[in-house]
Amino acid sequence: MQNFVFENPTKIIFGKGQIKKIGKEVSRFGKKALLVYGMSSIKKNGIYDQVTSSLKEAGIAFVDFPGVKSNPVLSHAVAGIELARKENIDVVLAVGGGSVIDEAKTIAAGVKANHDVWEFFTFSKFIKDALPVLTVVTVSASASEMNNGAVITKEDCCHKYSIMSPLIQPKVSILDPTVLFSLSAAYSAYSAVDVITHMLEAYFNNTEPVNSIIQDRLVEGLTKTIMENTDIIMKEPDNYNARANVMWGAILGFNGIATAGMGRVQLPAHMIEHSLSALYDIAHGAGLSIVLPAWMTYTAEAKTVKMARFAREVFGVDDRDNSKAAQKGIANLKAWFASIGSPVSLKEANIPEENIDAIAQNAEATAKLWFYESYTKEIIAGILRNAC
Amino acid sequence: MQNFVFENPTKIIFGKGQIKKIGKEVSRFGKKALLVYGMSSIKKNGIYDQVTSSLKEAGIAFVDFPGVKSNPVLSHAVAGIELARKENIDVVLAVGGGSVIDEAKTIAAGVKANHDVWEFFTFSKFIKDALPVLTVVTVSASASEMNNGAVITKEDCCHKYSIMSPLIQPKVSILDPTVLFSLSAAYSAYSAVDVITHMLEAYFNNTEPVNSIIQDRLVEGLTKTIMENTDIIMKEPDNYNARANVMWGAILGFNGIATAGMGRVQLPAHMIEHSLSALYDIAHGAGLSIVLPAWMTYTAEAKTVKMARFAREVFGVDDRDNSKAAQKGIANLKAWFASIGSPVSLKEANIPEENIDAIAQNAEATAKLWFYESYTKEIIAGILRNAC
Repeated sequence: MQNFVFENPTKIIFGKGQIKKIGKEVSRFGKKALLVYGMSSIKKNGIYDQVTSSLKEAGIAFVDFPGVKSNPVLSHAVAGIELARKENIDVVLAVGGGSVIDEAKTIAAGVKANHDVWEFFTFSKFIKDALPVLTVVTVSASASEMNNGAVITKEDCCHKYSIMSPLIQPKVSILDPTVLFSLSAAYSAYSAVDVITHMLEAYFNNTEPVNSIIQDRLVEGLTKTIMENTDIIMKEPDNYNARANVMWGAILGFNGIATAGMGRVQLPAHMIEHSLSALYDIAHGAGLSIVLPAWMTYTAEAKTVKMARFAREVFGVDDRDNSKAAQKGIANLKAWFASIGSPVSLKEANIPEENIDAIAQNAEATAKLWFYESYTKEIIAGILRNAC
Repeated sequence: MQNFVFENPTKIIFGKGQIKKIGKEVSRFGKKALLVYGMSSIKKNGIYDQVTSSLKEAGIAFVDFPGVKSNPVLSHAVAGIELARKENIDVVLAVGGGSVIDEAKTIAAGVKANHDVWEFFTFSKFIKDALPVLTVVTVSASASEMNNGAVITKEDCCHKYSIMSPLIQPKVSILDPTVLFSLSAAYSAYSAVDVITHMLEAYFNNTEPVNSIIQDRLVEGLTKTIMENTDIIMKEPDNYNARANVMWGAILGFNGIATAGMGRVQLPAHMIEHSLSALYDIAHGAGLSIVLPAWMTYTAEAKTVKMARFAREVFGVDDRDNSKAAQKGIANLKAWFASIGSPVSLKEANIPEENIDAIAQNAEATAKLWFYESYTKEIIAGILRNAC
């Protein structure tokens, strides 16, 4: 096991009927909230009313800031920063999924910065202060509700970059699984792909031989749990326990618990996917189900023992030959992604294969920024060709 | 899954060579520390020198308070409270295992109370303030380094009671697995028993049918990890990865992660064991390996499906009959406890069977205090007779 520091102070309030507590929680941090959300769905499903009633009851003033896109863009975040300053906002409340939370975090940091907020994403400046962020989660995938990261796309250059800071980590997140009952089958599937990919990228990072058995078992158990419960959700979208297991599993997969002790975790599939969604505006999870199996195929030879373990533990593959077991594991994962309706090839997402070099060039810029030195544009293009 | 609130802000610094960071961490919370520890072992194995060098380097004054017993007693905690007041201590640093940390927590709360600290343990007063507590862990079992509980024995009445409060939860805990290399085989075994019992009591609490699969898999994976790595430790006490897996597993088993969503968790085996160690001063883990299988036998009929699942998942039992599988699971667990040298009967711990009624009477007082209404002294005596 590698040395690590683990510190995750977010307070999680989990379960049905809990959204009404948000006003009281917000009041611990401020008196005037910027209410950040996406399109109209939270008004249709009643969550907007639940949140605003609770805010009013707690005496919290709030200013609406709707319109966050599912791949949140810099220009909109900048508009949020300006509004927050103009309105003397002292707390940012995100009501939504990863995109909304990530944009709320960006606004929280941007308000306190005397420069272009994008400089945080290119690592030319570092976050030194931020408004407190709280969340009410409506899509479970990113675990942004209990971690310190955020991802934003700068539209003019088509770069999707990220920031990390304990200052932007949510103070409180409220998760009510019943909120997910109205989430579409497609987004339920993409969410599951995202959760699984967070874990598997870290799991396959580990150098062989396996020496972090505690983390491996956490990832294997959580992966099976996400898969089984997503299968249930595809048939019964309002199955409370299935939604609850996915909602909590999404957090445990990417709040630092599953990876603590694994050493420096790289997320190459996420890195490459960010270029797909920056350039083609596809759903993040849809991009990941294309890239993850392609990346696993690329790295299978270097990680044979671990991939074979994955195949045996998660899919019950009984082939005793490690290379064959590894390949069966990749095939099984790909087949499962397809079974829940998430694309597994570029073509299925309407991404032209002749654009692979341009995508690879975009991703290489991220690779350099993230110090993933081995991911040249040639390597990345090779991975993408595994998804043809 | 049941509703829950999860909030665990302790900062964990994990790995070899990390103890030298304690001075800097303490300096975030105070300038003068009460250094709470047990007997001479931390002076022999060099940990005392590592800790005090780091404190001096960070400019932290400190006052030694040694002599914590392995079942920590109220009179000693009261002496610590008096010393802390006299010396104007502003931070409590525990260097030890669960007993030392629990007594440090008691001192931290007691310093701020204008009444007998025992009133916290009988729930006639509630903790409203406490000095900050930090820890350097030398025995991994209780997870007290990352939770809000503490247990103390009042010698004159032989009651071993507990407190819980976020105010006494450690701010920072440093865990260096190499520190465990010198832990005896007996205490390594008792530690493993304690860790496993924390998890299994919660796991078997769950009402059937199984509906918290995410927690079940966490517990099963962690239990297997603790068992496998303890087997390694019995042969190779200085195996770093094995010690690291147990050290981190002990925390994950009882810091709230494994139980979040399980509903109200009862710890009946711990409750009964507290009477054994209060009356006979045996090691807590040694008492648990006697009580847990006896309690499982008592409850096997009511929890057959879950016990059968446990037997299959953890021990690979392949009996398709649930009752038989459940019994095999209990037998396997008992055999494993015996294999690592932890007692599985009252006799092995030199506890006279004719004292069962007196033990049960002592435990019934705890049962009443903890609102475990179903545990009358007759029921408790019946459980203890399963350990004859």
